[in-house]
Amino acid sequence: MMTLSGDLLIGGSNVRGAAATFSAINPANGSPMKPSFAGATREQVEKATILAWHAFLVFKETSLEDRAQFLEAIAEGILALGDELVLRAIDETGLPRGRIEGERARTVGQLRLFAKEVRDGNFRELRFDPADPDRKPAAKPDLRLRNVALGPVAVFGASNFPLAFSVAGGDTASALAAGCPVIVKAHSAHPGTSALVGRAVVDAVAACGLPPGIFALLFDAGFEVGQTLVADHRVRAVGFTGSRRGGTALMKIASERKQPIPVYAEMSSINPVILYPNALLDRGAEIGKSFAASLTLGAGQFCTNPGLIIAIDDAGLDAFIEGAATALAEAPAQTMLTGGICEAYRKGVARLSAASAVSQVSAGKGGTPHQAAAALFETTAAAFLANPELQEEVFGAAGLIVRCENSEELRRVVESLEGQLTIGLHADAKDFVAASQMIPQLELLAGRLLVNGFGTGVEVSPAMVHGGPYPATSDGRSTSVGTLAIYRFLRPVSYQDFPADLLPEALRRS
Amino acid sequence: MMTLSGDLLIGGSNVRGAAATFSAINPANGSPMKPSFAGATREQVEKATILAWHAFLVFKETSLEDRAQFLEAIAEGILALGDELVLRAIDETGLPRGRIEGERARTVGQLRLFAKEVRDGNFRELRFDPADPDRKPAAKPDLRLRNVALGPVAVFGASNFPLAFSVAGGDTASALAAGCPVIVKAHSAHPGTSALVGRAVVDAVAACGLPPGIFALLFDAGFEVGQTLVADHRVRAVGFTGSRRGGTALMKIASERKQPIPVYAEMSSINPVILYPNALLDRGAEIGKSFAASLTLGAGQFCTNPGLIIAIDDAGLDAFIEGAATALAEAPAQTMLTGGICEAYRKGVARLSAASAVSQVSAGKGGTPHQAAAALFETTAAAFLANPELQEEVFGAAGLIVRCENSEELRRVVESLEGQLTIGLHADAKDFVAASQMIPQLELLAGRLLVNGFGTGVEVSPAMVHGGPYPATSDGRSTSVGTLAIYRFLRPVSYQDFPADLLPEALRRS
Repeated sequence: MMTLSGDLLIGGSNVRGAAATFSAINPANGSPMKPSFAGATREQVEKATILAWHAFLVFKETSLEDRAQFLEAIAEGILALGDELVLRAIDETGLPRGRIEGERARTVGQLRLFAKEVRDGNFRELRFDPADPDRKPAAKPDLRLRNVALGPVAVFGASNFPLAFSVAGGDTASALAAGCPVIVKAHSAHPGTSALVGRAVVDAVAACGLPPGIFALLFDAGFEVGQTLVADHRVRAVGFTGSRRGGTALMKIASERKQPIPVYAEMSSINPVILYPNALLDRGAEIGKSFAASLTLGAGQFCTNPGLIIAIDDAGLDAFIEGAATALAEAPAQTMLTGGICEAYRKGVARLSAASAVSQVSAGKGGTPHQAAAALFETTAAAFLANPELQEEVFGAAGLIVRCENSEELRRVVESLEGQLTIGLHADAKDFVAASQMIPQLELLAGRLLVNGFGTGVEVSPAMVHGGPYPATSDGRSTSVGTLAIYRFLRPVSYQDFPADLLPEALRRS
Repeated sequence: MMTLSGDLLIGGSNVRGAAATFSAINPANGSPMKPSFAGATREQVEKATILAWHAFLVFKETSLEDRAQFLEAIAEGILALGDELVLRAIDETGLPRGRIEGERARTVGQLRLFAKEVRDGNFRELRFDPADPDRKPAAKPDLRLRNVALGPVAVFGASNFPLAFSVAGGDTASALAAGCPVIVKAHSAHPGTSALVGRAVVDAVAACGLPPGIFALLFDAGFEVGQTLVADHRVRAVGFTGSRRGGTALMKIASERKQPIPVYAEMSSINPVILYPNALLDRGAEIGKSFAASLTLGAGQFCTNPGLIIAIDDAGLDAFIEGAATALAEAPAQTMLTGGICEAYRKGVARLSAASAVSQVSAGKGGTPHQAAAALFETTAAAFLANPELQEEVFGAAGLIVRCENSEELRRVVESLEGQLTIGLHADAKDFVAASQMIPQLELLAGRLLVNGFGTGVEVSPAMVHGGPYPATSDGRSTSVGTLAIYRFLRPVSYQDFPADLLPEALRRS
């Protein structure tokens, strides 16, 4: 059992933060939890980035096997934390044990998957392009290419994935796999969970004999640590999952640096679901019930939560709505991640309630003052098209159904959409002609398309894209989940006419 | 023989621009050339982007074979222009026939290389991740992935490559290969060359039965067309080769859009060359002579021109300087691409002459008022470190030698460098220990490293990186030359649980 100190982790050691302190709040009852966490000063941030830069020059050249073992050691360390981690995460997030345990399994699996990816070595993209001294009109040089790590990465813990997208989550695992040191700005909603996992990472660094600067964990009651990190010239990329406001603020800082850097911010998505008439006719009520289950999963606090339903106002739509409304009416209220998130959810629901031409079709059960009830609304395509605010994400279990008069109106609603993480289609064979005409458009709007399902449940696998055009993410060419995520932290370097002695080892074959 | 009309090419047709007119100027004598070219208005730009967007939805789904044939048809069309193209390019750029013919060969080769790359289909990065309905605790979905084209691309013709980085150059070839329509903003220094090649592209579009909106050619006497293009919401990426001021201006516009887009700007680089003591002792004079040849090639108007020499002030350095100085003193003056470039070069040389602790060691021969003479300077490491302006690119055949007192000073000079396209090393076997200690640093500073050579001469091949950290380019994760350039215009999309009928054809295998 580890005693939580509330300290920063810099250079492999506990360092007491010298800025303002804060405590975790148990969102189920609003009570503060021990210990007090102390924020990092600008000097402490800089200390971490200087150590990261020096560690980087060593870490980027570690062998694939050493790096893979390091990722596996982190996974082992997280598991070894046992119930202490699970209980702290439950207390800090209000999420149930099953969810936390599942997320831990995903986090550990993610680290192991990247260990495998590192051992494979394909991410290096080695290319060999031999010389041809006899080529006319000019001799051809010898060219070889490999991917090289970008440099230290600033990772922002996400409130809604206290393990899988936090201290040792997807961003950290993929950045470390690429050979980049990581400096984590912990999410202030789960600092204890962050500290436990951070200690596991620090222990893995030490056990693997790696330079301690390759990992740091920083706390902050506000935004200054994050802003300082992104502006620091030694930091070369940013991984962020959170709000659109937060993500765009970091994009702005990064673009205004003397040397701009890539920001991989996963920000907001309402994950539209298009319901086709034959699917609705065949199984409208059933789809409605599945939708309600997806909408309320984890109190709706998933980036892939299906917040928007688009359908032609046809016979099956009422069956869908009735199925969804009935299921939602039975849905228990759930504790949200933080009081602030709960309040923002209630405001979002109130905004939908007050919007013109929007009516509420169902509400989940009430609960304690710290819990939120699901809510389902409907509106017309005309109203949706006239009011862009209806596209704004309400983070939580709130959904909006858009009734379209015909396929032309449906098409216009789809064309009005911003970039999304996912778009779902519910379609029977008889709907395929209509659906297939839509797909070339949908590909341009989302990172992942899915048929007869909902986007919640993001597989960590080689063919996953958890990304999508702005504003779903800051960079629609990337994914933050799955093995492709490693490519965010690499850049190609070409070596021309290098003697073998000077080549990086992986490029030495003749 | 084509009559040059000076018209825009929009939707496959000649359209007279309705904005201000301008003429090409023969840089060898300052005289204007016929015809007058008319700039595009905002409405004409918008017409091109609307057509491009509609064409995109068709073009992105063309078969690999159709797209490859299209690229080959453009190559054929450029060759079929024959001497008319060569002569116009010579007149507009002041470059000699051999250079223009070589560049035409490269341009045609580049188009054919991308045709091959398209046929291979590897750029689609197809991934198949099969379902596992029995997996516990949750069934695994079927996931498939492919790369999809980003959308219409704005390409800016470069003054210094009137063929290979202009209308149908590397940016255009790679964007079309990816399935993106291209709207070219012609460089106003070679509008006739641009119009001839543009017509070849338009003819290829028609011959291949593709939608005419996939290509447009726009003229502008100023910057408004470019700015309007980059701000247009239908444009989804930018390819640019030019000045740092121009590139950063486009980056700013792109980042401030409602939906920010990637800008691939190749901007400025002084391409440092580090000379090691044993190499200098063995063959200092010879390296100096090669350096002079590289510095003056094409009047120094290459992005990879070696503008900076860094060496320890050792016995061999004087032999290098003497070799370089002697060769440069014999170098004839050359016509630069435009009067403006020539003037900027002269100002840059004057700035170096006037800088404190900088002395001139050689000057090339004088010529006509429209020609520029090579110039070589030297300074101390202390002065170089104290004056960041000495790192600013002087576009043309001007070089600066930095004398370092010892290896520690050399290291500090290297650490002070900004991002570069290339860094060269001249080293003998006895220098390899010192050089190998430097390489992990150099990898972070440049897209291409080369040993015992100079960066001029950029191979178009699979292992080439013509890129590098900011400010060499806006995006150090990319290359604008070589087959990897296609990836700039793609993004991954994941398809979950898609029935075969709805899958893109390439992903249908079970």
